[in-house]
Amino acid sequence: MIPAFFLLLVLSAADPITEVRAVLDAQVASWNKGDLPGFLAPYRHSEELTFFSGGSVTKGFAAIEKRYQARYGQSTATMGQLRFEEIEIVIAGPDAAFARGRYRLQMKDSSPTGLFTLLLRKSAGRWEIVHDHTSTGN
Amino acid sequence: MIPAFFLLLVLSAADPITEVRAVLDAQVASWNKGDLPGFLAPYRHSEELTFFSGGSVTKGFAAIEKRYQARYGQSTATMGQLRFEEIEIVIAGPDAAFARGRYRLQMKDSSPTGLFTLLLRKSAGRWEIVHDHTSTGN
Repeated sequence: MIPAFFLLLVLSAADPITEVRAVLDAQVASWNKGDLPGFLAPYRHSEELTFFSGGSVTKGFAAIEKRYQARYGQSTATMGQLRFEEIEIVIAGPDAAFARGRYRLQMKDSSPTGLFTLLLRKSAGRWEIVHDHTSTGN
Repeated sequence: MIPAFFLLLVLSAADPITEVRAVLDAQVASWNKGDLPGFLAPYRHSEELTFFSGGSVTKGFAAIEKRYQARYGQSTATMGQLRFEEIEIVIAGPDAAFARGRYRLQMKDSSPTGLFTLLLRKSAGRWEIVHDHTSTGN
């Protein structure tokens, strides 16, 4: 039997790349259950959160949440199925990481795809997205 | 008269935000002289450099240089005049920074604008762009 304190050590020594990857995987899992609040959970709930999409800037969690609600609804029927590909994660410092990749959405009648670059900060033991730059082909 | 060693101290203690800002300002100055190699100088001259534009990924300095040459030529007549606005710089670690903002190009017949997010790493005392995500409105 493995002593509990040893398990705790292993858990707390998680590799930061693995931690950030787990945040992204949890986002995809939430999206694919139609759980928009779950998908948005790692975005920093703050006015300083920024979202670049194409040529437009959205600031603050409330505005970004509204944007997602308006665009994707809150059920699998309207959100479709999400996949992340070509993920690269760079740990930039003890509390900063950067992640980039491609998203693919499978909707009823279309399959939009695009690229994203995220800046994450670790705060109180939790990785949070503080900046999201997303773009699609023209 | 200020002793030389004191000047050296001041120079070596430059604030990293100021250093990154100087890289961006030098890029704009190069662009506006029609100096494309000068504009591209801070991009890491490596295969690992990545450029996200809209929905497409370009990898490696050589491919990115070729893309700029094909699109903008190498003179003020074809490159137009560049301006960066709404610049935000975040120092993510001793050798990592993140910069974002809006670019505005004034061409003869058009004035394209868009957003960028950059990841920079400091290597041998020099800030280099290792990832560039740029996008425009659709």
